[in-house]
Order: sequence, then structure tokens, then C-alpha cells
Amino acid sequence: MAEFAKRMDNIKASDIRQLLKIIGQPGIISFAGGLPAPELFPVEDFKAALDAVMDENGRVALQYGATEGWKPLRDHIVKRLAARNDIHTDAEHVLLTAGSQQGLDFLGKLYLDPGDVVVVESPSYLGAINAFKQYECKFVEVPTDENGMIMAELDRILATTERVKLIYVIPDFQNPSGRTWPLERRHQFIDIINKYHITAIEDNPYGDLRFKGEYLPALKSMDPEENIVYFGTFSKILAPGLRIGWTVANAQITEKLNLIAQAAVLQTSTINAMAIAKYLDMFDIDEHVAKILPVYKHRCELMIQTMRETFPEGVKFTDPDGGLFTWVELPEHINSRKLAEAALAKGVAVVPGDGFFPNGENKHCFRMNYSNATDEQLLVGVHRLAETIREFM
Amino acid sequence: MAEFAKRMDNIKASDIRQLLKIIGQPGIISFAGGLPAPELFPVEDFKAALDAVMDENGRVALQYGATEGWKPLRDHIVKRLAARNDIHTDAEHVLLTAGSQQGLDFLGKLYLDPGDVVVVESPSYLGAINAFKQYECKFVEVPTDENGMIMAELDRILATTERVKLIYVIPDFQNPSGRTWPLERRHQFIDIINKYHITAIEDNPYGDLRFKGEYLPALKSMDPEENIVYFGTFSKILAPGLRIGWTVANAQITEKLNLIAQAAVLQTSTINAMAIAKYLDMFDIDEHVAKILPVYKHRCELMIQTMRETFPEGVKFTDPDGGLFTWVELPEHINSRKLAEAALAKGVAVVPGDGFFPNGENKHCFRMNYSNATDEQLLVGVHRLAETIREFM
Repeated sequence: MAEFAKRMDNIKASDIRQLLKIIGQPGIISFAGGLPAPELFPVEDFKAALDAVMDENGRVALQYGATEGWKPLRDHIVKRLAARNDIHTDAEHVLLTAGSQQGLDFLGKLYLDPGDVVVVESPSYLGAINAFKQYECKFVEVPTDENGMIMAELDRILATTERVKLIYVIPDFQNPSGRTWPLERRHQFIDIINKYHITAIEDNPYGDLRFKGEYLPALKSMDPEENIVYFGTFSKILAPGLRIGWTVANAQITEKLNLIAQAAVLQTSTINAMAIAKYLDMFDIDEHVAKILPVYKHRCELMIQTMRETFPEGVKFTDPDGGLFTWVELPEHINSRKLAEAALAKGVAVVPGDGFFPNGENKHCFRMNYSNATDEQLLVGVHRLAETIREFM
Repeated sequence: MAEFAKRMDNIKASDIRQLLKIIGQPGIISFAGGLPAPELFPVEDFKAALDAVMDENGRVALQYGATEGWKPLRDHIVKRLAARNDIHTDAEHVLLTAGSQQGLDFLGKLYLDPGDVVVVESPSYLGAINAFKQYECKFVEVPTDENGMIMAELDRILATTERVKLIYVIPDFQNPSGRTWPLERRHQFIDIINKYHITAIEDNPYGDLRFKGEYLPALKSMDPEENIVYFGTFSKILAPGLRIGWTVANAQITEKLNLIAQAAVLQTSTINAMAIAKYLDMFDIDEHVAKILPVYKHRCELMIQTMRETFPEGVKFTDPDGGLFTWVELPEHINSRKLAEAALAKGVAVVPGDGFFPNGENKHCFRMNYSNATDEQLLVGVHRLAETIREFM
């Protein structure tokens, strides 16, 4: 058999996806995934929307459609971005993708030759790192503090690094850290990328899931030079099983992303895009999101409070204002992969942190998710984790 | 702004996708797409399956799922492959993809470094050529006759060509030619790829759409050495808007395709896979396919008969036993791109043939689709085309 392509040396199994298989087993308490709470899915309403699509327009829903995606859904996205995020665009600059993960693959394909550099927060989303790795790139990690990316470090890196093609950031409730950039850093970021004329991806899957504190504007809303490619998704506010996200970018990038989508997949699912558009016609998605927020707030607070009460001194963790994750820093001598294995033996799953550092230097952190656990699971799971950590101290 | 990756020089707009935009305009008779007849979609039955999924299992349907795809659907695929195609596999060797187009992208990603060679039939499916081009490969075209790929030529090419990583073929009702390989060529093909230990993709979207002649076995059914990666899809027998196809491959390739799927898109749509599985539980898809066949047979025969009556002497075309397409060869001095433009000016769309030849030497052919046209459109469209051709003779 012929050899595989060189890029396959970089493509490893995602820890999270591997863990998801174990998590399905009975008795495991999982803080590992990034799964929304399924009991909050608007099953009845979405079924009504699906039925309306099938009744009114079933033959269109089951047929091929345009690569860029169902126009009424793109119109809805444009309207909501303007109303909620002060991002002003039009449907021609929106491309539907099969979740933001596909957007990451497409941006990697668009920009990255082997050896090109992607600049990321340290830590950054594991799935983005894996998507870009397919294109044989290098990563430069920008140090972060409790307020996210340190902008002086970003400036220094861009001034001194060759072949930077992309910057990838999650300014709101970052995956994995749960951190959010304050306003000043957002302005600084825009100034820096405009100075170097670099394309930056603003990945915003969690922005709508703010349950504490004040709204902060999206980078894309302060981007007259159009260096930002914005990623949004219905995965966290409606349902991930539909696999519908979107990109907003300037005309040139959008045209190229359309060509990539044509060659890679033709289009996203017609029926899924139509059903979401119909759901947005029939129901108020912000009312739905408003039902999610207090639940996630409660779960987050219960997890954090229990961690405060049980985790040994010397263990730090973030206290997020929204999103799905908190991030735990152990004393440096503790290997989080070994700790995660020991926790799993006690029936609790977390994601070891090293996968979130593309260059792999950090071994003593892990990520915890609170959105998809009951109060009892949160209490029992955190207690077991605390016990595991104490054994490693 | 940073420069795009080198691969973007190879990624052009698909003629077909561009044409699909024009085709939406009223009054245009389109023989250009590869669209199934939407009036044959089982809208009511599929809605019943969707409703059952939402009622019984809505929270699972809307949630993330495993990368390889909904297990009950993979079980259905395994059963149907055994019963209809004598292909014996199990669910672990099946990966769901967002249509076969995504399978093409994944296989290109798995095998192709820049400069590697893909061997294809001449002509071959334009969408496959575009998918592989993303990986900066070269193409070697194997000459074909009325029975498809000429195997002595394939043998000669494999004996003399360096860096062949993949062979891509459509043995049944090929896109664009409508041709089907006879049994002897299938056996020869297997002998040749086994001799050279080359991975071959058998793309079989149309195999179930045989409306004349005898069933011929899939290459994958005569592949004990597992050099064949088989592609199937629900797009042509159920509905393309769902974007669900599948690959069947050996364990090593399937494992790698899973990793690629994780990095590129996480998974196909959970709800769509579940709804198809439920549809297959509730209804007999072969009964549904049996309703499609006489319609396509009639449309094909009407198109071919009208072409026989109206096309000038010196114009050749295939008479397919199934699938969606016939292929027209004009006298060599006629440029099919100019002819297609002139036909469009008369309100008839066809796809110029040069896009189906990756090395672009052939300029005098075009592809016609009959599955998505009324009798009147078939009659009027072919007459107008005949008139256009006569103007070019």
C-alpha cells in the first residue's frame, strides 16, 4: 500500500474524542466534554420547526443547495449579529459551515503551507490546534494571564516571527481557560493586527453564554480594516448535533472559503439550515438562551464553590463569567495526564491540559466542564477529584 | 494581509456549482446539475422518521455524537452492502461522511503530498478532481472506451509512473460518461491494483440506479486484499440535502480517516444520521428506489431518443443503463465551452466537458443530466441543443 501523506504524522487522536467514548460508560462522571446540557435542548420547538420545513418546503430541504448555505438562515445570522454583537455585515459575507470545526479546517487550508506559523493563546482550543496541524504548520504561543492574551507579548512575537499567517483567539470564556479579555485588550489586539496586517480568527462559540458580568464587544465589531474572520455557531445556543456554524469575513476571504467548501464538501446540510431558519422565524432564540444561563451559572458556581472547599492549597482555578469551562493549575510537579488517569479510575473524567499547548511544554493543568452534569455529579465528582489531587500532592 | 497557501492556486470555482446559480433562474432548462428528481423524494415518510427520532430520542439527536457516526445507521449500511452488493464488512470499518464529496477530501488529505499522482478515468468526476487538486497532486488519465477504463493502459501507467498514491474510479454509470465497466474489466482492475499494491477508491453513488441490463458486482466485493476504499451515499437513493455518505475501508485506513474527520469536522450531523437509520427501520428503501427507476429510465430514453432524432451526424453520445448522465462527443473542431454558452443563451444549460479532464486536453465534449427534467423540458431542451450544435457544425 502506498504511504500516507506526510501531514498524517501530525494528526493524532483527540484526547477529548477518545474520552467521549469512555464517558458513555455507566457510572462515569464526566467533566471532560464540552457538551451542552441536553435537557435544555428545545426538542419540541425544534421538532415543530422541522415539521414546518418538511410540510412547506420538504423537496427543497432534501435537495442540494448552494455552497454558501440557505439564504434565509444567513439573513437571520446577519440580523442577530447586528442586534447582539454590533457586527454589521450582509449575507454575502456569511458562509455556513458544519460547525466551527469545519471553519477551522477551511482557514487552515486557505492560509497554511508547511512551516507557516499560527499564533495562539497559551493554552488554546485543542480542536483548533488539531485542525491547523493537518496543514503542517508551526505554532507560537502567546503567554496569557487572568485577563487572557498578553498584548505586549503578541506585539513582540509578531515583530520577531517570520511567516505568521494566522492568529487564532477566543476572547470570550475561552476554551479551555474560561477567561475573557477586558475591553482594553480587545482594542490593543485590533491595533496590533492592523499594524501587522495579519488575519485573525475570532472564535466565539460561547459569547452568548454570559451568566455574570457585563457584555464585552466582539473584536469583529471594531474591525473596519476587516482583518478578523469571525466564527459563530448554533452548537452551544441551540444544538451541536445539527452541525451548523458560520464564518463572517471580507469578500476576498469569503470567496476563497466558498471555493474550499465546494471542493471539500459541496455544502452543509440543506434541511438542517432550513430548520434552524424556521426555528428562528417561529421562536425567540434569546428567550431560549435565557433559560440556559441560570442553569449553567448554578452549575458553574456549584463546581467552583465545591472546588474551593475541597481542593488542596496550591491548586489554582479560574472562575468564569460564562461559557462551559474552568481551568485548573496544579503545582508544577504534578503530571496532569497521570492525575487524569487516576481520576478516571475513580470514575471522574477531566481533560489533561497538555493537548491545549501545541508545543506541549505545560504538563500540570487540566480542563473541567460543568454544563453537562447534575448537582450530585458536580458534588461527587469534585470531591473525588480533590481526593485524587491530594494523593498527588 | 498574509498570502494564501500555495494550494489555493489550484482551487477554482466548480463549473457545475457556478451553473447551479444560473439554473435557478426561471425559464432555464437545466441538464447541467446532477440533481435527483425532487418530486420523488419520500417527503412524508422521511418526515415520519424525523418525528419518530425527535419523539423517542430528540436529546440524543441534537447532541454531539461519535466521529464515526450513529452506530445503528452504520449497521444498516453493513446489512445493505451484504445483501445488495455482496460486500461483507462491519460497522467498525464504516465511517459516515458529509456526502461522498467529503470522503474525497479526506482521502486526498490522507494520501497526497504535493506532486503525488492520482490516476483517474479520462474523463472523471469534476468534483473528485477538484477535491484532490486541493492537495497539489498531479493527475494521470487512463484512456477509456465504451466499456470504461482500458485496463492495459492502466497497467502500463502503473508500471511506468512514479508516486502513484491513489486510483479513483466510478465503475457504474460513471459521472460524466454514463459508462459501466463489464465484469471482465472489474476482475482485471483488481488484479492490477493488487499487483501494484495501490489503494483505489470505488465511488458508487449511482450503482442502485440501474434501470436496464444486469447487475454487476462492486469492485469491493472482489477485494480480499482490501486495496479498495468504497464510497456509498444516500444522496441519490434518498436525499442529497441530508449530506450523509460513507466509506468502507480496511482497519488502518478507517482509523486514519477517523482522525482526519475529528480534526476537520468532528462528525456528521447526528440528527440526519439518526433520521436515516429510523427511515430504514420504518420503510423499505428498495421499494422507494424501485419507484425512482422507471422515471429515470423514461427520462433517459426520452432524452436519448430525442438526441438520436435531432442531433446532427458526427455527434456521438452514450446510452447509459442507469445513473444520471449521458456524455456527448462533438466533432473535435467544436469547442464545448462556447457551445455551452450559446446553448445557455437559448435557455439550456449543459456542463462543458473540459473540467472532467484534469489535464484539460479535451475540449469537444459535454455532460447532460436527465434525472431532473420534465418530458417537455427534455424535448424542448434537446431540440434547442440540437439547433445550437448545428450552428457550430
